[in-house]
Amino acid sequence: MNQRNNHVPPPLKLGSLAYGGDYNPDQWPEEIWKEDFSLMQEAGVNLVTVGVFSWAKLQPRPGAFEPEWLDRVLELASAHGVSVDLATATASPPAWLIRQHPEILPVDVNGVQLGFGSRQHYCPSSPLYREAAVQLATELVRRYHDHPAVVMYHVGNEYGCHVPQCYCEISAASFRRWLKGRYESIEALNHAWGTAFWSQRYDDWDEIEPPRRAPTFPNPTQQLDFARFSSDELLECFLAERRSIEAIDTSKPITTNFMAFFRPTDGWKWSKHQDIVTMDSYPDPFDSEIALQSAMVADLTRSLGGGRPWLLMEQAPSAVNWRQINAPKAPGQLRELSLAMVGRGSDGILTFQWRASAAGAEKFHSAMVPHVGQNSRVWREVVELGRDLHALQPVLGTQTVARVALALDWNNWWALELDSHPHSELRLPELLLQFYRPLFEASIATDFVHLEDDLSSYDLVIAPCSYLVSDTAATNVVHYVEGGGTFLTTFFSAIVDPNDHIRLGGYPAPWREMLAISVEEFSPLEKGQTVSLGGILAHSGSTGSTWSENLTAQGATTLLHITGGDLHGVPALTVAPYGDGQGYYLSTLPDAQTLSTIVGQLLADTKISPPLPHQRGVETITRGEFIFVTNHNSHYVTIELGQSYTDLLSTNGPQTTLELPPRGVAVLQPTNQRGA
Amino acid sequence: MNQRNNHVPPPLKLGSLAYGGDYNPDQWPEEIWKEDFSLMQEAGVNLVTVGVFSWAKLQPRPGAFEPEWLDRVLELASAHGVSVDLATATASPPAWLIRQHPEILPVDVNGVQLGFGSRQHYCPSSPLYREAAVQLATELVRRYHDHPAVVMYHVGNEYGCHVPQCYCEISAASFRRWLKGRYESIEALNHAWGTAFWSQRYDDWDEIEPPRRAPTFPNPTQQLDFARFSSDELLECFLAERRSIEAIDTSKPITTNFMAFFRPTDGWKWSKHQDIVTMDSYPDPFDSEIALQSAMVADLTRSLGGGRPWLLMEQAPSAVNWRQINAPKAPGQLRELSLAMVGRGSDGILTFQWRASAAGAEKFHSAMVPHVGQNSRVWREVVELGRDLHALQPVLGTQTVARVALALDWNNWWALELDSHPHSELRLPELLLQFYRPLFEASIATDFVHLEDDLSSYDLVIAPCSYLVSDTAATNVVHYVEGGGTFLTTFFSAIVDPNDHIRLGGYPAPWREMLAISVEEFSPLEKGQTVSLGGILAHSGSTGSTWSENLTAQGATTLLHITGGDLHGVPALTVAPYGDGQGYYLSTLPDAQTLSTIVGQLLADTKISPPLPHQRGVETITRGEFIFVTNHNSHYVTIELGQSYTDLLSTNGPQTTLELPPRGVAVLQPTNQRGA
Amino acid sequence: MNQRNNHVPPPLKLGSLAYGGDYNPDQWPEEIWKEDFSLMQEAGVNLVTVGVFSWAKLQPRPGAFEPEWLDRVLELASAHGVSVDLATATASPPAWLIRQHPEILPVDVNGVQLGFGSRQHYCPSSPLYREAAVQLATELVRRYHDHPAVVMYHVGNEYGCHVPQCYCEISAASFRRWLKGRYESIEALNHAWGTAFWSQRYDDWDEIEPPRRAPTFPNPTQQLDFARFSSDELLECFLAERRSIEAIDTSKPITTNFMAFFRPTDGWKWSKHQDIVTMDSYPDPFDSEIALQSAMVADLTRSLGGGRPWLLMEQAPSAVNWRQINAPKAPGQLRELSLAMVGRGSDGILTFQWRASAAGAEKFHSAMVPHVGQNSRVWREVVELGRDLHALQPVLGTQTVARVALALDWNNWWALELDSHPHSELRLPELLLQFYRPLFEASIATDFVHLEDDLSSYDLVIAPCSYLVSDTAATNVVHYVEGGGTFLTTFFSAIVDPNDHIRLGGYPAPWREMLAISVEEFSPLEKGQTVSLGGILAHSGSTGSTWSENLTAQGATTLLHITGGDLHGVPALTVAPYGDGQGYYLSTLPDAQTLSTIVGQLLADTKISPPLPHQRGVETITRGEFIFVTNHNSHYVTIELGQSYTDLLSTNGPQTTLELPPRGVAVLQPTNQRGA
Repeated sequence: MNQRNNHVPPPLKLGSLAYGGDYNPDQWPEEIWKEDFSLMQEAGVNLVTVGVFSWAKLQPRPGAFEPEWLDRVLELASAHGVSVDLATATASPPAWLIRQHPEILPVDVNGVQLGFGSRQHYCPSSPLYREAAVQLATELVRRYHDHPAVVMYHVGNEYGCHVPQCYCEISAASFRRWLKGRYESIEALNHAWGTAFWSQRYDDWDEIEPPRRAPTFPNPTQQLDFARFSSDELLECFLAERRSIEAIDTSKPITTNFMAFFRPTDGWKWSKHQDIVTMDSYPDPFDSEIALQSAMVADLTRSLGGGRPWLLMEQAPSAVNWRQINAPKAPGQLRELSLAMVGRGSDGILTFQWRASAAGAEKFHSAMVPHVGQNSRVWREVVELGRDLHALQPVLGTQTVARVALALDWNNWWALELDSHPHSELRLPELLLQFYRPLFEASIATDFVHLEDDLSSYDLVIAPCSYLVSDTAATNVVHYVEGGGTFLTTFFSAIVDPNDHIRLGGYPAPWREMLAISVEEFSPLEKGQTVSLGGILAHSGSTGSTWSENLTAQGATTLLHITGGDLHGVPALTVAPYGDGQGYYLSTLPDAQTLSTIVGQLLADTKISPPLPHQRGVETITRGEFIFVTNHNSHYVTIELGQSYTDLLSTNGPQTTLELPPRGVAVLQPTNQRGA
Repeated sequence: MNQRNNHVPPPLKLGSLAYGGDYNPDQWPEEIWKEDFSLMQEAGVNLVTVGVFSWAKLQPRPGAFEPEWLDRVLELASAHGVSVDLATATASPPAWLIRQHPEILPVDVNGVQLGFGSRQHYCPSSPLYREAAVQLATELVRRYHDHPAVVMYHVGNEYGCHVPQCYCEISAASFRRWLKGRYESIEALNHAWGTAFWSQRYDDWDEIEPPRRAPTFPNPTQQLDFARFSSDELLECFLAERRSIEAIDTSKPITTNFMAFFRPTDGWKWSKHQDIVTMDSYPDPFDSEIALQSAMVADLTRSLGGGRPWLLMEQAPSAVNWRQINAPKAPGQLRELSLAMVGRGSDGILTFQWRASAAGAEKFHSAMVPHVGQNSRVWREVVELGRDLHALQPVLGTQTVARVALALDWNNWWALELDSHPHSELRLPELLLQFYRPLFEASIATDFVHLEDDLSSYDLVIAPCSYLVSDTAATNVVHYVEGGGTFLTTFFSAIVDPNDHIRLGGYPAPWREMLAISVEEFSPLEKGQTVSLGGILAHSGSTGSTWSENLTAQGATTLLHITGGDLHGVPALTVAPYGDGQGYYLSTLPDAQTLSTIVGQLLADTKISPPLPHQRGVETITRGEFIFVTNHNSHYVTIELGQSYTDLLSTNGPQTTLELPPRGVAVLQPTNQRGA
Repeated sequence: MNQRNNHVPPPLKLGSLAYGGDYNPDQWPEEIWKEDFSLMQEAGVNLVTVGVFSWAKLQPRPGAFEPEWLDRVLELASAHGVSVDLATATASPPAWLIRQHPEILPVDVNGVQLGFGSRQHYCPSSPLYREAAVQLATELVRRYHDHPAVVMYHVGNEYGCHVPQCYCEISAASFRRWLKGRYESIEALNHAWGTAFWSQRYDDWDEIEPPRRAPTFPNPTQQLDFARFSSDELLECFLAERRSIEAIDTSKPITTNFMAFFRPTDGWKWSKHQDIVTMDSYPDPFDSEIALQSAMVADLTRSLGGGRPWLLMEQAPSAVNWRQINAPKAPGQLRELSLAMVGRGSDGILTFQWRASAAGAEKFHSAMVPHVGQNSRVWREVVELGRDLHALQPVLGTQTVARVALALDWNNWWALELDSHPHSELRLPELLLQFYRPLFEASIATDFVHLEDDLSSYDLVIAPCSYLVSDTAATNVVHYVEGGGTFLTTFFSAIVDPNDHIRLGGYPAPWREMLAISVEEFSPLEKGQTVSLGGILAHSGSTGSTWSENLTAQGATTLLHITGGDLHGVPALTVAPYGDGQGYYLSTLPDAQTLSTIVGQLLADTKISPPLPHQRGVETITRGEFIFVTNHNSHYVTIELGQSYTDLLSTNGPQTTLELPPRGVAVLQPTNQRGA
């Protein structure tokens, strides 16, 4: 992206860790606003996002612009020392605009036009929508860019959340333009899409349509390109607004909030255009692995920002409303998860939302001020968290560094989950989770990385089901290993090129030599089916699920092999030296214990260890000089620290032994540094 | 409803309990008709419903009216002493009308226009449909209103059964008119719908559409109003026909058949316009609780009619055809369930249908005359039931009175089952069933009641999940308790007002003072998840499912509390005196045994007991002076009656002990009264 | 079909068993083609199907015809001694044709138009599609009919696979024409469809539409006629191309490939128009009964061709791609299943496809040349199979004869699986499988037969759930039994006539006298529910599932009866002599062991036995004088042959004892014949 080459993103001028959330005063009578700001002061709130869904309030009818209410909100914010993340308010176009131009409405894969009445009811390719959004953003920034409360711009909201892809005629035309840009000639497109198959050859660009509902499996490369296109179209919506802001004000960071592991939008491509990467994270309290889920999102967000501090833009103070059944957070869980987010690089904690709505689809979403008011557990925890964040000011701006990385590429994600595969139920985030789990449980800091990027800062790279790899990525990995890196990949990796064409000659073709193996044929396993595993890394009862395959070691050492069945004796885990490094290959998905053993072996190979001696259920993560320690157990733990630390969250003073209650968190600073 | 203020509904002039069913002679050659009426006489049939689906036979082409075949049917009926419930024949418009005006066809939420070829293929808002229906009804009533066979009018059929809501443009326009009538100003609508949320503000009525398929959760109040509107639109179809009948003939009862617990049409609003409330009831013979299901429907129907006798308009003599797998009724089960219906207030038993069809979608629906003919179990039971009903003539017109009521409000039902709730799988009929079960098993007569209605005739009112309550209802309940009533409500009650806006300040806001509790936060439970319960009403192993919550007793006595987990010690069942009455609050759904204990406590509090000493599996219900006793066990039972009764269904004479075989029924009249 | 009366189909002039598969050179650069043909020679391939999806390559734009590449392919084939099954290439119309005439695209039951981009995207009734297809077929046949490589014509491909029924306006008009042809008068249609029910009467042909999405169950006879119509429309597509070929060349067989038990197309009607019946068979390697599934398809194919040799047109060399999870064939399984197909009458083995694609939706479908190339298990097995087929040349043209037949009628299949039935989850292939299993396990050759056809060559006919029977079929069966046949039918048989009207008076009306029973009422069983069975054919623990019914023996002997429940003592299996034969009736679906006992009794009655003494897991089938023996066990078996045979697949010479390894196959020729 040329325009970004020399861009130094403007910093968030807040001077402390951010604390606050989405604030929607337009849902409440003005007499409530003063109480709001007074309560914000009580809770230590210093940043609120304003106006995300205010389009219809700001432009209540064609031609009108009525921002006076927002003037008053910003005045109150200034007066109470609360900064504002100003939204461009464009996430949901108003009813009058839809009535004037119903072609703004999106159309689904079956041709059903989605109606007004929820949110995000627009075709991302609609020029009418884009123009109206840019016009509103311009008006807002023109009016408020020098308002003292405004410190940040928040463009749109959760791009792609409900309408990641639109199949209308406007989208179709835009898709054709995008394809012309990508392929230049129709013959190049025919080759890339493999249209010799099933008589799909195109003679003219105008014959091409989005992959609408068809008699059976649509062309896979068409699907893949439509995923790329759709991510780009949403990004273009963001960029159009971004450009309109920059035309007026380049002094404040501009961002939009991402949505964790969100398949429709390519995180690497999008994050290049964020002055600060911000994330919405809504793990499910019913999930017993919520801390792991939360950490994985934090590590992704930090990685998308290249390791720089990021910002948790939204999380629920307690329950959400949009799952079928919605559990509240347990007592203490808000603090436990929030502080761990800070440990993984977030320069603050924002929530959705400040005050619980009384009406609308999200009225049962928890908020910092619940329906019941201040006499509540949630409010008390909100105030406590504000105090904790205040105590963590030294952490501001420091960074978390990882020596391990998991490979994540949206192109691979889109391609892996296409239909008509040997196993069509592989889901990349679930596969990544399998490998993230033993790393998290061992308190090893982990990044996510694109295989085309520089890998040299990592000692260990793990690439599960990297089905699609570009030539660049394939070569990059080989050079990484050659140069001393340790690399593990799995079944169904390096199978296709970016056009989703098979890399012929034995899987995984570009890495066969490096791994010293060859795979001849896949043998995926039914749900519930397993193969038994033996070998030096097996325990009694080791099994593999999901996949097996007919693999030949061609020089590699076998660490696990299949026992019994048609593939008896076939290697399941191999390792081979290559250059100064080594390549592991795993042909099945081992049970958790075996996988933990494998990851343990990788960590031993690369001499990677956690910040403090490992203790079960205790998460430790280093940020700058600080060690964040969280006790996820339901019992007290005592940790021998080996040297003297001071806990920023307690008044205990220097200590060499740390005791933590259930859900307890400590942020340790080496005592000698503290004096400095 | 003004027009109904002084309306005394004309009685059904039959002079005895009704017996019969839907009769569709137009499906058969005329030579069969004489056999039909001769068999009706054999079975004691005295009422048949004629013409429900005869529109295309009566008006076979544009402009034609060919009722001569119906003349002949009515003549035969007269000649054989069989009365006729004359249908207006408007449930399914004919093919020629659809071809002339395809805009009559309904459209679903996705915009799919539903085609001709099944039944009820009309948009309820269609003026063309309504005009054609009124025209046909007028023609029929004009021709037959003074025919001696006709004793009743049957308008339409099962309104809303397959097309409860239509999303076409005609419906949209009608919805806007309805909304203007409800809100008068667009600002009032914006407030009611909470359109400040998600930028949904409307500037003009014409911007409003039905809640068609949208990117995500549509506006909840819009959904709620569309449910209200759709019920009203169907009712307007009924009323248009009703008015056309009344313009000619006010001497006979007019009705349409309801469909048990049917969510789309507001039973309270509709029943005001029925001269006699009639019901279709199709419980599943595979359901081991079929007797309970059947009783619950009977009690609902009686309640909708204000306690007056009602009429079972349809039931299956044996199997139905429309479930995936359809069990026949067991031998004796037709009699068992039918007589229990009479015990709960039905002035007769009608079925669908007289003679089993040879063609069409319902040919495998059982009938009084099966495909095999008279040499069949079903026919023999049909004849037996006719004899039994004849023996029950003294029961005609008497009433069943209940001292317990369950709260049922369609507005609450619609609102409770909206999406985006803490627990989005709550279903009101299932919740009502949980409380109806212990009452039924204890043979306690139970009504259903609207919380805005006069509650003073009840000693006990139970209101599970009364999520939406109006101010009137909320206050009415408080006055009821104040005046000495016993009231139990549960979690997720009195949460919102009729606009689906939260009642702020601690749940359940309008009843907190009365119940002497406050709820701060919900903690719904996953499927299969339970909390343990302790306390004086707990048994060992008491649990709650579905829901728990953070509740504080503020003066109430705790009868059950949660043990273990984050909510350890929190009250689960409380009771508090208020005025001359008392209010119970239940914050979870207890297991059946615990719930039975709770209901037992409520009955003890209110000194309510069954008509005869309770015996497991024996249902007793009082109607007038008669006690209907049904043995649902698969073994004989002996019941000590305590005084002398005579069984109308046997020739045993006065008895103080009653023996009943499996599925046996007795209808007991106190012996001394009998002599009078 | 008049045109076929005197038609002697031209033979496939190959001179040996066919071996090969679909060959798609247009997906590959020409430099690969030479390697392809050289490898074909190595594998013994002698027949390839060319051009199935080449429309867009042959006619790349409007008006163009560019077959030169195909010239070169056919030249190479000739030069390498490989014959060609020339496809008409019409299965998927090209993009330019769809853009010119989007009305060619099909429309589903909801009105969704299916898009271009997968395959078979055409309305079967489209005159534009048909004309374009005929034009292309004509061009191809004109050019290649005297090419020496071409030995066969392959019309279209898998007709109806993804779009068996189209609901567009063109289809609607065609449906009306078809109905006029069937019924002549609208009154006849009204009677046949039973439109007196639910006011469905039609006054004019133009009122009739396809059974599009409707409020509830559409008219069943309309659905049945639409199934008939849709099969006929697809057949008309085939016939139009067939006629265009015959206009130029009548010297080579013309066929299209069927798809095993494929409901949408009436196999009996279609097979009359195939010069050789060809079949695609894709049983699932995850299915432990894959050999049985494969055999059942083979027996169906042979039966559709009237016993003549047929051709396996497609099977997977190993895995397919289109199930959710796709297992490869086990080592040796390709040979095991392929040779058994030859044993059941196939004059060769073809696969999909020759070389695994590198792009497109089927790139993970296995092929004879896998992605990895020749150094692979699959390729080695492909070469081995070629050698085996070469050794089986004596088998060519011989026939398999069966004395047992299972009834299969597409009209019954369509009707049986309509909605709104006593049990709406009956599926005919699953029911047939229940009876096929014990026959297969006993190595009894079995045909499929239409009950209107001549049954006299069979000693035993089994007709499960023959719900719909014509008068002709009903009478034919009675004459068959009268003449000495043994006939077994089951519950829900002979219930309706071809209009789906009930045959009144006690089920199964036309066979009640013959079977000496009468059924009064159905009592289908829930999933998982069973009834206990007693009687002389019961073992301890015999049960019936799926169905039970109230049956009276009226002269029949009871062999099994229900014990317990409401139907205690009611017969479940009866037999009665009739004329010189006997009729069995089975009113439930017995467990596998009991069903095996019943079938054993039928075989004993009719003195039918397998070609060799039965051994568990060993399949034997006679073709001509040859006995194919396959060991499906995972252990070695030894079989005493009783006389001297020579195994065509081994070099052992004459032997009286046969030893077979797991998956081993022998093809035995009586030694004395061999000398002849």
